[in-house]
This record gives sequence, C-alpha cells and structure tokens, in this order.
Amino acid sequence: MMSSPVYATLAFKATRIELQGSVAVVTLVRPKERNTFNNDMITELVHVFGLFDKDDRVRVVILTAEPNAPAYCAGADISGGWGSLWDEESEKEGEHAHRDSGGVVAMAIFRCRKITIAAVNGHAAGVGVTALQLPFDFRFVWSGAKFALPFVRRGIAPEAVSSYLLPKLLGNSRALALFLSGATLSADSPLLQGFYHTLLPTREEVFPAAYTFAQELAQNTSQTAIAITKALIWHGADNIEEQHLLDSRAIRTLGAANDAAEGARAFKEKRPIKFTDTLSKNMPTWIPWWREIDTKHRKAKL
Amino acid sequence: MMSSPVYATLAFKATRIELQGSVAVVTLVRPKERNTFNNDMITELVHVFGLFDKDDRVRVVILTAEPNAPAYCAGADISGGWGSLWDEESEKEGEHAHRDSGGVVAMAIFRCRKITIAAVNGHAAGVGVTALQLPFDFRFVWSGAKFALPFVRRGIAPEAVSSYLLPKLLGNSRALALFLSGATLSADSPLLQGFYHTLLPTREEVFPAAYTFAQELAQNTSQTAIAITKALIWHGADNIEEQHLLDSRAIRTLGAANDAAEGARAFKEKRPIKFTDTLSKNMPTWIPWWREIDTKHRKAKL
Amino acid sequence: MMSSPVYATLAFKATRIELQGSVAVVTLVRPKERNTFNNDMITELVHVFGLFDKDDRVRVVILTAEPNAPAYCAGADISGGWGSLWDEESEKEGEHAHRDSGGVVAMAIFRCRKITIAAVNGHAAGVGVTALQLPFDFRFVWSGAKFALPFVRRGIAPEAVSSYLLPKLLGNSRALALFLSGATLSADSPLLQGFYHTLLPTREEVFPAAYTFAQELAQNTSQTAIAITKALIWHGADNIEEQHLLDSRAIRTLGAANDAAEGARAFKEKRPIKFTDTLSKNMPTWIPWWREIDTKHRKAKL
Repeated sequence: MMSSPVYATLAFKATRIELQGSVAVVTLVRPKERNTFNNDMITELVHVFGLFDKDDRVRVVILTAEPNAPAYCAGADISGGWGSLWDEESEKEGEHAHRDSGGVVAMAIFRCRKITIAAVNGHAAGVGVTALQLPFDFRFVWSGAKFALPFVRRGIAPEAVSSYLLPKLLGNSRALALFLSGATLSADSPLLQGFYHTLLPTREEVFPAAYTFAQELAQNTSQTAIAITKALIWHGADNIEEQHLLDSRAIRTLGAANDAAEGARAFKEKRPIKFTDTLSKNMPTWIPWWREIDTKHRKAKL
Repeated sequence: MMSSPVYATLAFKATRIELQGSVAVVTLVRPKERNTFNNDMITELVHVFGLFDKDDRVRVVILTAEPNAPAYCAGADISGGWGSLWDEESEKEGEHAHRDSGGVVAMAIFRCRKITIAAVNGHAAGVGVTALQLPFDFRFVWSGAKFALPFVRRGIAPEAVSSYLLPKLLGNSRALALFLSGATLSADSPLLQGFYHTLLPTREEVFPAAYTFAQELAQNTSQTAIAITKALIWHGADNIEEQHLLDSRAIRTLGAANDAAEGARAFKEKRPIKFTDTLSKNMPTWIPWWREIDTKHRKAKL
Repeated sequence: MMSSPVYATLAFKATRIELQGSVAVVTLVRPKERNTFNNDMITELVHVFGLFDKDDRVRVVILTAEPNAPAYCAGADISGGWGSLWDEESEKEGEHAHRDSGGVVAMAIFRCRKITIAAVNGHAAGVGVTALQLPFDFRFVWSGAKFALPFVRRGIAPEAVSSYLLPKLLGNSRALALFLSGATLSADSPLLQGFYHTLLPTREEVFPAAYTFAQELAQNTSQTAIAITKALIWHGADNIEEQHLLDSRAIRTLGAANDAAEGARAFKEKRPIKFTDTLSKNMPTWIPWWREIDTKHRKAKL
C-alpha cells in the first residue's frame, strides 16, 4: 500500500484538492478563464484521479466549480488555436499518434474505482460536458445550467470518448439528437432525462446537495462492493451465461469477506455500519477479468 | 412433444401454480416470511419456467404475490447467514464453482420463450427486484411499492445477472445510479422511467390489470412470432447487416407458416384471430442461431 | 466526384424528390393507398438515399408525407398476400436467400452519411415505423399520430432491422414492451419518451418545424464532422480504449481541415459560419474503419 498523499500540499494551479473524511473534493479554480480545460487542468485531473483510485481513505470523489464562477467548464482552451492541442512529440510521428487530452482525462475518471460525482453548478460546453460529466457515476446539476455539445458546429468530432460513453448512458436516440444537433440545452431538457441524478433550482445548492449525498454513501457503502459493481456494469460479459459466472464468483468472494459479514450483522442489529475492507488489501486477485489496453503513445506526454 | 403437466398437482411449498386457459399464474405464497427467496422458491421457479417454456398450452406467464402479503419479495432469506447460500458440493471445489441461485432463477425466466409479466403488487428488495423483475418482458407495479437494490450497502455485488440485464433494459446512466446508491425508491421515481410498463394506484389492482393484459395477448399473439421476436432482441447480431440476414430469414420462414396466413386472413376479414402454430411443432430448425452456454457446475445442485 | 443528379427529373411514382438549397425533401405520394410500402417506394428510396449520400450539395434529408394523406405510412402493401413479398429469383434458391425489403430500405437510410430527419405527419404502422422512422437521426411527429408495431399480432417477426435499431435507440425495456405487446400507441405515450425529438400539436406543423430545423443545421454544421460523428456512434469500438484511439484520430484529422479552421475563426469573429469541406473531397482515407458486409443476394433484385 502506498503512503497516503497529502492533497493540501499539491502545488496545483487549475484545481484545488481537499480530502474531508472519506470524501475527496476537486474544485476547478480558473473562474477568470471560465474554467476552460487547459494543460494544467489535464495534468492535475489525471494525477489526482489516479491517486484517489489507489488511496484507501477515499470512498467518494466530487468534482465541482466555485459557484460564482461564470461556468462549470466552458470547454477547451483554444486561445492558441487547434494546433496548440497537438503534442509536439506525437506530431513527429503522424496523426495516428495523437492522443486526445479530453479522452485521457475521461479515462482517468472512468478507471477510478471509487464513487464519482460531478456537481455541475454552472454552464458547461464541449469537454466540460464530455470529459467532466460523462465518465462520472452521478451527476448533480443546477437546473438552469446550459449543456452544449457544439462539435459539429465547429467542424470537429465529439471527443473524450463521449461517443462511447453517451450512447451507453442514454441510448443512441438521445445521443444522436444531442451530438448531431450541436444544440445548447437547459439541464432540465426532456432530451437529458436520466442523465442527471438530481436537479437543484440554484447553482449554490448543487455542491451542498452532492456533498451530503457523498457523505452518506461514504459512510454506508463497501469500497470493494462499489468497485466490483462498477466493473460488472462497464466490463460485463457479452452474454448472460458468462455474466452469471462473473457475478457468481463476485458474490461468492465478497460474501466471504469482512464487509459482507459486517453488512449482515449491522442489518440484523439495526446499528450503523462500519465497513473496513479496502481495495489495496481485499480485492480478489481474479479482478480485473478484462483487458485494459495501454493507449499511451510511446513518445507523447499524455 | 411432452405430455401436458398438471400444474395443480405439483407439491410446491413456496409457490402456487395455476393454468387459466393460456395464461399461467405463479403466486408466491410465503407471506409470513415476506416472500423471501429460499431454496423451495428457487427450485420451484426454475422447474415451472422450464415447463412453461415447453408447454404449448402456455402463451403468457404472470408472477405475482398475494396482495395482502407484506412484500412482493423482500430479498434473499439470509436467516442462516451468507454461508447458507453456498452449495456444499461446489464449496469442495472452490469459490469459482459457486453458482448464484438468483442468476439460475433469472436465467430460467429469461430463457422462457413465452410472454412473461411480473405483477409487482408489493415492496421488493434485492433478489425480489433482480431475479423476480428484471428478466420479465413486462412489469406491472403498485406505484407505492418500494424498490431497493441495497447490495453495496451490505458489502456484496449485484446478483442474478442484474448487472447484465439492468444496463441493457435502461442504459448505464440509470443502472449506475440505482446500483451504486443502493437506494430505496418508490416505483414511480423518475429514475425508474421506462422500467415499469404500467403503474397502478393500489396493490389490489396490479394483478387484475396484468391478468387482463395477459389474456388479451394470449388470444391475439402468435407463439412462434413471440419467441422469435424475443430472440432477435436478446440474441441479435453485432452489426446491422447480420441482423438483416437474421430477420430476413425469420420473416421468410414465419411468412410461409400458418400463423402468418391466419394473421393476414383475420385482418382482411376483420374477425377475431385464432393462431395455432406452436413452439414444439412449428419453430424453424435454424433457431437457436446463438450459442447457449451450459453454466451448470458438474457437482452443484443448481 | 459524380455529376450532380437532377432530382426533379427523376421519373418516380411513389415519392417526390426536391432539393431546396442543401436540404433534400422526399415526400411519399401514395395518399390513396395510405402511403403503403410497395415496390416503387422501395426502389425509389434505396436509389435516392444512395444519391444523397454521395451528393455533396445535400447536407440534410427529410422524409415526410403530404399532411392531408390519411397516413404517414400504413405499413407494407400486402394486397397481394405475403407471397407477393418474396423475390422470384431468390425463391429458387431457398428461404435463406430472401432479403427483407424493409431492411434494404432501412440500411440505405442508415448508411446515408448526411443528417436525416423523419417528419412523421400522420399515422404509421409496421414498416412505416421500422424502415421509415427508426434509421433516422431525428424524428419530428404529430403528437396525435398513431404508432403501431403489430408484427406479433399478424404472426410475423419485426422486420427492417428494427430488432437491431430499436433496442439501441431506446434500450431493451421499451423495445420489448413495444414489440411484444404489438400495441398501437399515441406518439406522446410515455413508452416512446426519447424516441421523438419534437412533438407538434397538429400534423400541418410537422413538416415546417422539421424544415426550419433542417435549414438551420444545413447552414451551421460540417458535412465531414456529421459523417464522422454518426460513424463513431454506430460503428464504435467494443471498449473505451479503442474508442479513444478512434476519436483521437478523428479529432486530429478534422482539426487540421478547413472546416475546423473556419469553425474557430467564425466563433472568434462572431460571424455566420461557412463550411466548405465535403465528403467526396475531404473524408480521411482511414474511414470507414469498420467492415460493411455485402448482404445482397447474388440472384435477388434487392
């Protein structure tokens, strides 16, 4: 097990990281730039979501912005033009060597085995939706927040593995409508039904609601059960029989562990629960059962 | 073709089985135990759904509880602890030999080629949702019924192939929210939109509504068309062209059978329809086109 | 690049084709036959959607009916019996040689790389839903329009690759309910939530609303970005890492093209956009990355 990171001492520029009990909070702190997605933000998010994944103290992660910022995230920082997004090293090899930075961030969040919550307390566009909302387990939102996926109106394709995540989250009917219209919608649009877990009437209420929800889950859910549940959903088998073999093994393994015993006892005794199993010590060795492909380019920064 | 089972004579303890015309009704009869899922219920459900699949008289199956029971199904009977769920024989071999009983029941329902309806006239938790609601074609529910998937709050993983079925039924956004929160919801929660076909204001109305719906479908739908439609949805091809080959063959085969001729005639003559094709006599020999994996462990009971 | 077709001169019987700027409009003109799906309609739709796909002038396609027709499309023309649907040549070889004409039309629409909109200004049944609504990117509808998928009530299977498209559009819960009930629903039924992009109170309003929407998209979206976005959704990879490689390459390629440069400039200068890249000249050579299977039977007409 790694030594525990001290998040407060991280010398970050685009984000502020706090650990409050078992709940980690990442706040975007580029309000003057409308929290646009820049290199600092990319590097910092990839780094801390990797830490949260491995840090046994962390049970829930919230990403949010300061509620008085003009946006949750207004998209990519293209003040330097599209070319500023290409990496010098991979460019030498050719276009196939490019790795989209939105996707690198989205995959870091997607791979984090803890509960993740996006507390969307402002407008979001482009990568502010794709990388900073889609890969999360829960989305809380201000009902007046704007949601925009304007890629086809800028001449580019949807990025940040959003063409993978959005169809799986909501189905292709809504995904096609959202991507191909390039529309700007309000968070309470019927097209987004099922996307947001909780809508709040003001932006100020978003983070407190997400935080209360996060604390309750941090106290009452098992770290190993959460990680295995996320894996069964995202890395499930192609047919029902193989999924039966997977979940049978998951239940048999977890059922013999401390958390399941505590779960049964606390339920019987009607007392608060105290889960103790951790990912570093108690994950079965047969997990992961899926193949995780290394997409890092040998010469690129990302 | 097998001889017709006499359901009324089955010496069952956890369920009561009735065949009313073409509609089979399974009623859970453990009200004192809140219809918890025990070994009797498992054995009986697997047995009768296998019979219904093969019995040409059966066109629609309804699963329900007695409306004055305190629950539709309150989950697994863990009065003997988690260990009581493991099978003695498979335990000798190791954890990989375990077969989750919820999954065995869910797959028996899933594999039944008739129309299946869950008439959820009371609260449901755990396996009462996963095995006893997800594998059905239609779900009728009392709008005040509680819906709970508390696995992550007990330290275990979702079972009964629910991590396969729920994402496919509703998409990953709702599946993640339901599984990872471990929440107890009311059946009319927005998170469950699209899950229940019909909501009824009182628990007493649930079964009669499902039964009327079942009778109408039993009278007016083709047994072979239903079976092939279910197969095309659950066992479809990976790409549109192969699905085109599959459904072309299905239409050509069915189009030359008695039911299609009767369908065209009755429509033209504006008279009640009388379908006669049966699964035992009229299913094309090229079905199933998919591979059904035998997951039974050689030493286990299930 | 092919010479530009003159749509107005096509000697079509079942449809009228018009090109208005970048918006192509296909109108079904068999009102006396309730716009039933016949051989003329099949041949003409397959032909023009193939043309639209290749004609760089076309950015958006709308399919509609005349608003005073008694139906948008009342289903297949089976006035000659089911047998009239079989092709003479393929029949000589056997049932496996049959190719469903609804599927041939649905795949022609599905493969069209432009934005497609179904403007459903009347009732629709069977193939009027499957081939003429499901493969489109957007569906506009009169809220009083009837929607019927009566296959199981006629003794046949769902056709036109609808068992592929509908589950992917809406998820299996709604797809099972719609197919297995064979129900006739109103377009504003809760079971259809997420299926229609826009509902209009009268049938007369449907086409004008779709046309205004189409014109706005034709003016403001990139042809290459649209084609690649559709491909990323329908031909995506099986896992997130491979999708990351695909969308990274798409973004890198598009990001260096004219449309992306124009997209950035017009955004910066707050002026109307003018995209010029076309599918015939500017599609990257590594697309398509997926395998398109030739399902045409060597002896059949379709």
